[in-house]
Amino acid sequence: MAWQGCIGEAGQRIVAHVRRTPVMQAEIGGYSVALKLEQMQHTGSFKARGAFNTLLQATVPEAGIVAASGGNHGAAVAYAAARLGHRARISVPEIAGPAKIALIRAQGADLQVVPGAYAEAAARAAEWQAATGAMQVHPYDAEATVAGQGTVMAEWEDQGLDADTVLIAVGGGGLIAGALGWLEGRRRVVAVEPETSCALHAALAAGAPVDVEVSGVAANALGARRIGGLCYGLAEAQGVASVLVSDAAILEAQALLWREVRQLVEPAGATALAALLSGAYRPAAGERVAVLICGGNIAPDPLA
Amino acid sequence: MAWQGCIGEAGQRIVAHVRRTPVMQAEIGGYSVALKLEQMQHTGSFKARGAFNTLLQATVPEAGIVAASGGNHGAAVAYAAARLGHRARISVPEIAGPAKIALIRAQGADLQVVPGAYAEAAARAAEWQAATGAMQVHPYDAEATVAGQGTVMAEWEDQGLDADTVLIAVGGGGLIAGALGWLEGRRRVVAVEPETSCALHAALAAGAPVDVEVSGVAANALGARRIGGLCYGLAEAQGVASVLVSDAAILEAQALLWREVRQLVEPAGATALAALLSGAYRPAAGERVAVLICGGNIAPDPLA
Repeated sequence: MAWQGCIGEAGQRIVAHVRRTPVMQAEIGGYSVALKLEQMQHTGSFKARGAFNTLLQATVPEAGIVAASGGNHGAAVAYAAARLGHRARISVPEIAGPAKIALIRAQGADLQVVPGAYAEAAARAAEWQAATGAMQVHPYDAEATVAGQGTVMAEWEDQGLDADTVLIAVGGGGLIAGALGWLEGRRRVVAVEPETSCALHAALAAGAPVDVEVSGVAANALGARRIGGLCYGLAEAQGVASVLVSDAAILEAQALLWREVRQLVEPAGATALAALLSGAYRPAAGERVAVLICGGNIAPDPLA
Repeated sequence: MAWQGCIGEAGQRIVAHVRRTPVMQAEIGGYSVALKLEQMQHTGSFKARGAFNTLLQATVPEAGIVAASGGNHGAAVAYAAARLGHRARISVPEIAGPAKIALIRAQGADLQVVPGAYAEAAARAAEWQAATGAMQVHPYDAEATVAGQGTVMAEWEDQGLDADTVLIAVGGGGLIAGALGWLEGRRRVVAVEPETSCALHAALAAGAPVDVEVSGVAANALGARRIGGLCYGLAEAQGVASVLVSDAAILEAQALLWREVRQLVEPAGATALAALLSGAYRPAAGERVAVLICGGNIAPDPLA
């Protein structure tokens, strides 16, 4: 599939609705890294890009939108739906936590908190879709979602990205799939997952997407039980490097982002950096490394 | 005095030591504003620029550096001194609070916490200077300090600043003096002070710098009792607009910066934005407004 074309079109489609997030070069933990502060996107994560790209190219039914989400995708879909004048029903698992649940509610969505984890919320969203005819927006494994998320990397290159290697956190794989689709091997992409939520790593080891258990500090953002097929296909074809980081490494990276550059992010947003700081990914001498900061919806809300 | 030349030289002098902080366009509270995220500077405020510019052009005595500070200046001086291999003695008033005191201590400085406010800390720093021959770094009313802070505006213009008007928070006036010196009237500069810490506003009303009482949520960063003479001279000569904001408006701007762009800043860092959101400064139709975010050292530390 011609991802670059899709991503280029997505960029034009969503440009009036999303923020061009800032980039910078900074030294963190002794490394000089290129950062993109995508947690400054609307509703605090890259997810707004996929949501707008999906809604803007669809004919949305009268029943509106339905989405299941650990939090960030739900907030983004609710925001995009409200901006575009659609109703939105968002099913959120309890593990999303009060900060993300409040964030989704603040977008004006019809919110349903479901006991359990993401899979339970997804089942409830599917029921709602079947009952009402509402349109479902997949959080990661749909072409429109992936193409929207790919605009992050296209934008970063347009902003002059100077890096050999880009570290990206992986949950269901929508963000990294977009990056792989855009880059087509022009830069090295490293997939970073928590040891306790590693659907891509497990799939690459097994030779196909498989179910994994998910837990840990980043689970409410990265805790997909199975990697998306689009992501798996791209990652396998391009031979992407896959590394794992501990919860302790994620929390240390989160602390350093605050202490050294005053960016307060959620654990998922610090996961890519954790690979560098913990040594899970060791750049060669002179290798220029970039880190994508993908989400900032920390709990508890520091000003609540 | 030829400020532009001094500021240009300062920029070359400090470029290897300070961060080029990111800029962006964002909608906050219904306004589209150009932001510069200078709270991402080393030690969390613009103060590192003046500190490096001062130390790099001086012959630092064996006794090292001494500075009095409500917090941000002390942290910046301690950081710059450590990087350049000098001893630093920092006198901090108790009102700086535990987060800023811990920040200064983390830079490795010899720290002295003084009961009272900034004036008491300044007296202790002067005693130390007299007793040891240490070099004092003034927080705002010295040419090298002002020239260093002026590099923020020079850098912002180099990054393509697109604005008619720039809102800047004022404490002792070093930052705005640098901006006025660099811009020389090419853009409108609006001085924003808390109602309860308004040394520039009082000076402009009185026709000369006068002592004021200081209190309020931003006092540990903006609470100078008397505006710097360099700042007053520039502000008076250029007829700068001076507006005041309430503590409530500052806290609301601080909350919006977190909610809408995931930037967690201290009250002083949100003070310039508060002028726009509260209506203390009302732009004309079509007027393009920029807001300088100057400090991020919030208390308590959200990850402590």
